[in-house]
Amino acid sequence: MKAELLAIGTELLMGELADTNSPFLASRLPPLGIDLQWATLVGDDPEQLTGAFVRGLERSDVIFTTGGLGPTQDDLTRDCIARALGEETVVDPALVQRLEDIFRSRGTDMPPRNIKQAQLIPSAEAIPNPRGTAPGWWVETKGRIIVAMPGPPVEMQGMWQDEVAPRLLKRDRGQVIVTRNIKTNGLSEALVDELISPWLGRENPYLGIYAKPDGIHLRIIAKATDPENAWAMVRPVETGVVEAMRPHVWGFDDETPEQVVGSLLAAQQKTLAVMETCTGGQLASSITDVPGASAYFKGSVTPYSKEAKVAAGVDASIIEHHGEVSEETARAMAQTVRMTLGTDYGLGITGVAGPTEIEGHPVGLVFVALDDGNQVQVQQHRLPPRRVTIKRRAAAAALIELARVLKGGAMNAGRDD
Amino acid sequence: MKAELLAIGTELLMGELADTNSPFLASRLPPLGIDLQWATLVGDDPEQLTGAFVRGLERSDVIFTTGGLGPTQDDLTRDCIARALGEETVVDPALVQRLEDIFRSRGTDMPPRNIKQAQLIPSAEAIPNPRGTAPGWWVETKGRIIVAMPGPPVEMQGMWQDEVAPRLLKRDRGQVIVTRNIKTNGLSEALVDELISPWLGRENPYLGIYAKPDGIHLRIIAKATDPENAWAMVRPVETGVVEAMRPHVWGFDDETPEQVVGSLLAAQQKTLAVMETCTGGQLASSITDVPGASAYFKGSVTPYSKEAKVAAGVDASIIEHHGEVSEETARAMAQTVRMTLGTDYGLGITGVAGPTEIEGHPVGLVFVALDDGNQVQVQQHRLPPRRVTIKRRAAAAALIELARVLKGGAMNAGRDD
Repeated sequence: MKAELLAIGTELLMGELADTNSPFLASRLPPLGIDLQWATLVGDDPEQLTGAFVRGLERSDVIFTTGGLGPTQDDLTRDCIARALGEETVVDPALVQRLEDIFRSRGTDMPPRNIKQAQLIPSAEAIPNPRGTAPGWWVETKGRIIVAMPGPPVEMQGMWQDEVAPRLLKRDRGQVIVTRNIKTNGLSEALVDELISPWLGRENPYLGIYAKPDGIHLRIIAKATDPENAWAMVRPVETGVVEAMRPHVWGFDDETPEQVVGSLLAAQQKTLAVMETCTGGQLASSITDVPGASAYFKGSVTPYSKEAKVAAGVDASIIEHHGEVSEETARAMAQTVRMTLGTDYGLGITGVAGPTEIEGHPVGLVFVALDDGNQVQVQQHRLPPRRVTIKRRAAAAALIELARVLKGGAMNAGRDD
Repeated sequence: MKAELLAIGTELLMGELADTNSPFLASRLPPLGIDLQWATLVGDDPEQLTGAFVRGLERSDVIFTTGGLGPTQDDLTRDCIARALGEETVVDPALVQRLEDIFRSRGTDMPPRNIKQAQLIPSAEAIPNPRGTAPGWWVETKGRIIVAMPGPPVEMQGMWQDEVAPRLLKRDRGQVIVTRNIKTNGLSEALVDELISPWLGRENPYLGIYAKPDGIHLRIIAKATDPENAWAMVRPVETGVVEAMRPHVWGFDDETPEQVVGSLLAAQQKTLAVMETCTGGQLASSITDVPGASAYFKGSVTPYSKEAKVAAGVDASIIEHHGEVSEETARAMAQTVRMTLGTDYGLGITGVAGPTEIEGHPVGLVFVALDDGNQVQVQQHRLPPRRVTIKRRAAAAALIELARVLKGGAMNAGRDD
């Protein structure tokens, strides 16, 4: 079933409001076997909106809309659907009654203009909206479906979960789409592309490559008549890709580096402490995004000056001899914080986040040290010279390396460009 | 000038990645007098993408695209522009040279696949991209413009600011729209609405109210034939609103709390240190997102356990008597870190980020302490019980309060629910 989304509202085109409804719906259509082909922002303009519906009815089996169901003059969704279908809007007494009840429960009378929200067309059925005044429209005519939902995300998501998704599930689903996301780190996009080229370029199962702050993601997408067959198409590709990519695979699907590390530490009842400079608190903040992190994360220090490093217990002479940005200082930071907080593992990160060089080192040079209590390994990274990117990627690299070791990988020192 | 946006990438249609580029561009077109009519997500499908360009060339004066400029097989933007215009892609030696230099500076050879990124068509000119490997395309032919930009927001936004916006500015403009964003904190939306009611309800200049994580934003939008006249309409409203809202105004336009605090500390040559628990590194990470933060930020401690707090120098008896989540412990944290790192200001944050209560305190209770060297003020917040929201909003509240004091506001203790 071919689908398209229309997110309606001039405020979206003006950039005053970000459209969060389309990403929400886009992520929920594939499991229903609905193939989203277009997603468009349309302003509150009668001609353009009517035109969008006319074109949508030509090229799509189902049109999902969000927004434009309010009571004001620039809420045009209902009128434009009617125009596109050549039908007349009529006021529905039952819907009027419901609106009057809502306003009475709020202790006021219904403003006359809200009568708009009681309109229907012959081929439309009202979709209940217990979270707001605007009912949705389920329009079904000439083999096409239009589902009009309110713009406020809470109302739209509630209507989707309670009403729209269940109705769509009941229909003959045709194809279902399943996806498997494989997360890798430490290789360039082009290198990954070469390693997995045997599986690239196929329509179904489809293999996509996405560069993310935590590395390269490989997503396998399969379409079939039922989930079992779809997964049967995914598995061999997954096995082959994981085989070709190890040891660079660190997670699957929606897993984050901090979640992977968190569940490994919790399962092994190990603890972690962190000392970070160029990541400036990003590493600690990622770790503590995970609920329950206090079970294994004992704390962090962000010594943003030489004095602060010494105050945190780092041997001043090491900084003197080797510099703040050095393998030795990273090593000392990991060891010091691990001993101070008495944890099983210690991570130390020092580097140059920019905007200027430090001690002659270029922006993007980062040292990541991991102390497991027996030995310390240090890895050197050269990251793109952008401050926020350096923070995110260095923090992710540290967690991914810790995950590798927690999974039984050997401690080692190395480069990773 | 009629414009449309194409955000390119199957991952956007699959809902795997939210399109942040379109909102960014949408918000920046009105000041250039460019009228955005359509914004569409298109998947990595040659037919659909080429079709989108063909239709765009029919109905729009300028087409902005983001994404699909990478080196992999499903990066199709260049090919589809060429097909839509009936032109052939050719490899540009200068661009090849640039790519080889980039990879050499990263210590590797250019993977063969990246040669794609050195392609041009006769009517296309390369747009420099110092932040990544993919140059943009500026295509101008038959009275139409296509501007193809990379998908990674950092690269796209940089290319927009350094290259695309300046070129568009040089062109003849129609009606100009300018906006001024006033950021406030500490008042409910309803209260703000009352305070600024004299300016509400006008068409031009228009005043909008938007609730954001860092407080209530007030946006003034004016339309005129040229920027001077538009700004002349904005100024009186801005003056009136700021007058009515102070001392709740903390920033303007795209300013973040960490930027405001950063420039105030730098200008006053003051320094800051932080000790945070429930924000888990988020506060330090926000502060260090600002280039040059090392001039005023001396460091932070994230003691995620009682032992870690004591190791950081917090008086154990205070924690014993009053608990880890208490006004007194927040106060001690701010004082301790300020003294340890010898800074002018110290911030201390303790609270309950969830998922479970601490010492009988509910999720969302947060104490923020500010030590200015003479006295310590503590504010109590009750935030929505969502972990990441608590981290963000508590960190923002601490910075906004410090900004108020740095602007000469009085130190005080208060509640903010």
